[in-house]
Amino acid sequence: MEINLISDTVTKPSPEMLKAMFNAKVGDDVFKQDPTVNEFERIVADLFGMEAALFFPSGTMANQTAIKLNTNPGDQIICDKWSHIHLYESGGASANSGVNFNLLDGKRGMITADMVKEGINDPEFYHTPFSKMVGIENTTNKGGGACYELEELQKIKQVCVDNNLKYHLDGARLWNAMIAKKQHPKQFGALFDTISVCFSKGLGCPVGSVLLSDKETIKRALRIRKIFGGNMRQAGYLAAAGIYALQNNINRLEEDHNRAKELGKQLEQCSWVKIVEPIETNIIIFSPIESVSDTEIIDKLKQKGISISLMSKGKLRIVTHLDYRQIMHEYVLETLSKLTF
Amino acid sequence: MEINLISDTVTKPSPEMLKAMFNAKVGDDVFKQDPTVNEFERIVADLFGMEAALFFPSGTMANQTAIKLNTNPGDQIICDKWSHIHLYESGGASANSGVNFNLLDGKRGMITADMVKEGINDPEFYHTPFSKMVGIENTTNKGGGACYELEELQKIKQVCVDNNLKYHLDGARLWNAMIAKKQHPKQFGALFDTISVCFSKGLGCPVGSVLLSDKETIKRALRIRKIFGGNMRQAGYLAAAGIYALQNNINRLEEDHNRAKELGKQLEQCSWVKIVEPIETNIIIFSPIESVSDTEIIDKLKQKGISISLMSKGKLRIVTHLDYRQIMHEYVLETLSKLTF
Amino acid sequence: MEINLISDTVTKPSPEMLKAMFNAKVGDDVFKQDPTVNEFERIVADLFGMEAALFFPSGTMANQTAIKLNTNPGDQIICDKWSHIHLYESGGASANSGVNFNLLDGKRGMITADMVKEGINDPEFYHTPFSKMVGIENTTNKGGGACYELEELQKIKQVCVDNNLKYHLDGARLWNAMIAKKQHPKQFGALFDTISVCFSKGLGCPVGSVLLSDKETIKRALRIRKIFGGNMRQAGYLAAAGIYALQNNINRLEEDHNRAKELGKQLEQCSWVKIVEPIETNIIIFSPIESVSDTEIIDKLKQKGISISLMSKGKLRIVTHLDYRQIMHEYVLETLSKLTF
Amino acid sequence: MEINLISDTVTKPSPEMLKAMFNAKVGDDVFKQDPTVNEFERIVADLFGMEAALFFPSGTMANQTAIKLNTNPGDQIICDKWSHIHLYESGGASANSGVNFNLLDGKRGMITADMVKEGINDPEFYHTPFSKMVGIENTTNKGGGACYELEELQKIKQVCVDNNLKYHLDGARLWNAMIAKKQHPKQFGALFDTISVCFSKGLGCPVGSVLLSDKETIKRALRIRKIFGGNMRQAGYLAAAGIYALQNNINRLEEDHNRAKELGKQLEQCSWVKIVEPIETNIIIFSPIESVSDTEIIDKLKQKGISISLMSKGKLRIVTHLDYRQIMHEYVLETLSKLTF
Repeated sequence: MEINLISDTVTKPSPEMLKAMFNAKVGDDVFKQDPTVNEFERIVADLFGMEAALFFPSGTMANQTAIKLNTNPGDQIICDKWSHIHLYESGGASANSGVNFNLLDGKRGMITADMVKEGINDPEFYHTPFSKMVGIENTTNKGGGACYELEELQKIKQVCVDNNLKYHLDGARLWNAMIAKKQHPKQFGALFDTISVCFSKGLGCPVGSVLLSDKETIKRALRIRKIFGGNMRQAGYLAAAGIYALQNNINRLEEDHNRAKELGKQLEQCSWVKIVEPIETNIIIFSPIESVSDTEIIDKLKQKGISISLMSKGKLRIVTHLDYRQIMHEYVLETLSKLTF
Repeated sequence: MEINLISDTVTKPSPEMLKAMFNAKVGDDVFKQDPTVNEFERIVADLFGMEAALFFPSGTMANQTAIKLNTNPGDQIICDKWSHIHLYESGGASANSGVNFNLLDGKRGMITADMVKEGINDPEFYHTPFSKMVGIENTTNKGGGACYELEELQKIKQVCVDNNLKYHLDGARLWNAMIAKKQHPKQFGALFDTISVCFSKGLGCPVGSVLLSDKETIKRALRIRKIFGGNMRQAGYLAAAGIYALQNNINRLEEDHNRAKELGKQLEQCSWVKIVEPIETNIIIFSPIESVSDTEIIDKLKQKGISISLMSKGKLRIVTHLDYRQIMHEYVLETLSKLTF
Repeated sequence: MEINLISDTVTKPSPEMLKAMFNAKVGDDVFKQDPTVNEFERIVADLFGMEAALFFPSGTMANQTAIKLNTNPGDQIICDKWSHIHLYESGGASANSGVNFNLLDGKRGMITADMVKEGINDPEFYHTPFSKMVGIENTTNKGGGACYELEELQKIKQVCVDNNLKYHLDGARLWNAMIAKKQHPKQFGALFDTISVCFSKGLGCPVGSVLLSDKETIKRALRIRKIFGGNMRQAGYLAAAGIYALQNNINRLEEDHNRAKELGKQLEQCSWVKIVEPIETNIIIFSPIESVSDTEIIDKLKQKGISISLMSKGKLRIVTHLDYRQIMHEYVLETLSKLTF
Repeated sequence: MEINLISDTVTKPSPEMLKAMFNAKVGDDVFKQDPTVNEFERIVADLFGMEAALFFPSGTMANQTAIKLNTNPGDQIICDKWSHIHLYESGGASANSGVNFNLLDGKRGMITADMVKEGINDPEFYHTPFSKMVGIENTTNKGGGACYELEELQKIKQVCVDNNLKYHLDGARLWNAMIAKKQHPKQFGALFDTISVCFSKGLGCPVGSVLLSDKETIKRALRIRKIFGGNMRQAGYLAAAGIYALQNNINRLEEDHNRAKELGKQLEQCSWVKIVEPIETNIIIFSPIESVSDTEIIDKLKQKGISISLMSKGKLRIVTHLDYRQIMHEYVLETLSKLTF
């Protein structure tokens, strides 16, 4: 048995999803003539109560497009120091949009309205970069799947309004947040200028993210997507998976969360584990005791057929997902309980 | 009957191609663990006798990546004034890579070694942009599917070598050129630093292009693709279509070319047609007589269920392709022969 | 005697100008506390009837700042194929602002309203670059000092207004145009969104150009100038030269123009000259007969102590200026009349 | 009496320096024909034992050019979180060069070899930005004029060599460091790929910085300076001030340092001062006790004719310089001693 807990991106379409994909009616989406893509974009926009949506080959491109839409070269983005847009998009924000970051020292990847306020540069003092956008990640990846309270996001919104800042949500795992916090897409749609949501993580699609905004902005996004080369022809096969996932794979995220919590409880009982960070969704981050190295743990689990990954020195990450079934879960729990160093 | 002759990008996968896609073994290509993508990249690289290949969601992104690989901001690209990279990539070359163009006045979209030589700026005269790359398009899109002689491409290669210029081939329709001129991929692989080839045009795949180069360059391309956000997860479904197309859809391009030539002959006999440009592959460009407007022709054909497009004022374009079958062809020939203004 | 007719940029301050510089009251212009710079900017703005002005170390930076102010990355600038911003700013427009060009085939470097209209891309067709700015050069450098009629500039303005295009004037030698055509700065100030004017060419200052626009735009220009690093500390020494030049060196440009015309007449009588292009201001462009090469002429004049330059193959350029005095002029006329090949 | 202790950039040329400036022999530096600029660049290069030098209108442009020389878009610069290139160049690094920062948590603006080593991203893990350059600032501005030990700089050099990183020194106040630490320019020239040194701060020149590197790099820098528009015509007037300063104004920096230390001692005795940070050169950073606000102090001193500035909330900055004479110093010491809140 091969159990991959490295990321929720490794999921493969179920037979039902595959069937939906290959029965899709398609057209040339570069001319906006793919009916399935158009329908998918409409569905997602309506779900969030936003005017328009655009399909992208990746969450990175959806984020990069949002950054280009919301900023000018030289501008500064305010976000947590652990943000995906800073750490894991290959420097795309500066390469594609010429922007830089004011990295706030948040908690588990989450920042507060007060921190944002403090982090805004005086627009009259032209020697410092021009503050232009606040970037939120929810759930936080490096923060271990932590979720924002809606109230804090509303407070940050107010700071943005007061200071003419654009407000972007990297919702790569927003579905997990909404399930965990019992929030609704429209609550996010009402707050942000731009939102990216991913379908190839928890929702189990093979490829794709969607960017949401108002109509005028999405029209500009179409041009930016073309500049990056993110325009695909018969993309309806991929969009069909998204439609299927929205109908079938959202509520079941709770299973992933429950299994993650159970794994966390098990880890807390392991003598070789020092800290298990709070688990809110499908990501578990834990640190071994000093006498045990990261690689020892990864290697020993690998030998048992279980793949997990290194987040950063001394921090290991486990991610549960659609393809991590109950039988695997029981095996992993047992394996962890027996592991010694 | 709905006949779309606007572009060869509108083709949809055949049932056999769809089956190949549906049965593909996939993995997470962002970790380079999709076996079908890996196999596809290997096959294409071998076909051209080049070291390595990388799969992209579009030909635009493959070209944009090549430009980024071959240049530094401020550099100048030498190419024909009708090049796709200048006209139809939304200004991506300047937006993504900060480069500009020396646009040569070629013939049907094709330039010569002498023109390239003349177009190189003195590298010591630092006021003019630094000449860094030559871009070839084969077949030429706006040039009506015209194809280069290998000999001229070899001469241009020599100018590039002599002047330290990178040499890129936009091979969006290179398959058509090779069929028309009886050339072999390895002949192109031996000449160029980077080549992009497209699978969603004549070859009938839904999505995707491949960039070819040496191993070191493709490694850098992987990073650039990520910067653009062109990394896709289970992309094997799309790559499987490419493998199928290489095995089944290349030789049949001759049919498209023959039909294009037959359409051209018919158009020459139409009283409302002034000029039909030479037809070498699957693109027909023709101009109506003065008393008949572009839109009249487009509209009248539309009423008969035939869609064609406007290339530029006074120039109409027809493109034949995989989904343009014999029965449609006969209908179009007959319709054209009866059309009057 | 060493006579430099390569460019009007080679002029050196007169003793009077030097004295004005030497006596300037200065401060730290990075904090906008240099009184002479502030006064100079005020004077130039008032002269053109524009709201605000900013001093720059070069005309190139003033133009590059205007481009950055008027465009977004990926946008297209419409201008003549011979424009300085395309040919002689080292690719800065694409490097600094990520923009590209639609190069019109104007006459002596000048374009018309009809050409501009024709050159605008359909903003809905997102595959082509977004047309955003029209760039005018007056007088034209490579066009041999040709000057626009105000009427044509007004017509182009209307096209810009109708199509939401920004309108920039590269006025490196605008002073010459105004003297030649008896036009007034305010007539230009009323038309353009941004204007750059140079003080280190015909006006004889050692360093500097000024960018003009509305107050809000110049505020943004201050930030862009800082991004380029064009902020200087006690720049008042240089600004003082500009104030002196405005008071003393404008009307005398007519002398330069007269001498240029006299040189042109002399050249027309030389057997080794094929064509002398029309002379409107201080630039003479001429072509030798086929049997005489560019370098032969340059070398022979060099031996006589006269430096002229090569514009492009088969085109030689002479520029008259403040430091080209009557006694030199007589010597050059005589030398030309005696020169044989 | 008006005493400006806001920055050492506010100094104005002495009569002797002014005389040197206006007696300078000049030419057109855009053609590299200004003899004084050429001589100045030669002198500075020789002083540091480096191959070549280039004159710039500002330290910001010298730094921005170094960044462009040392990086490609998307790359990451490793430097202290307080670096001028991150905080005070208007986001130029990202706007001009498309790069981003790994900001290390150094001490008083200074980083260590160990921190640099830890901060390098794995070049094979293409999701994180590519580490490409280490940026050092010496003395540190926001760090209160702190100076590096040569030994640490050598260790960092070794990390750069081992990891293919470029090594840049922002030497805006390097002259102060060398005087304070009794170091020699050649010791820095031997370590760094690029060095910027400023002449309009402690050395008292009106305008200008110099970038140092090897010959090939400076040749590329000439082109980049042109792209920014930093090319000036008769710049010799400004360069002459630099030559004068090198001969006359370096050793006297010790006076500035001594006065700074005396001011520090005085501040330590003031009841309204909580902390005075260590003083190594000409910058004093101090914090008031909680009951006294920053603005109260600034305002009260202003009323006494003394201008000082706010570094950041709760941190006030005083900078001594060439134009801060003994008589002023005595007045400031006395004023501080009498100040009460």
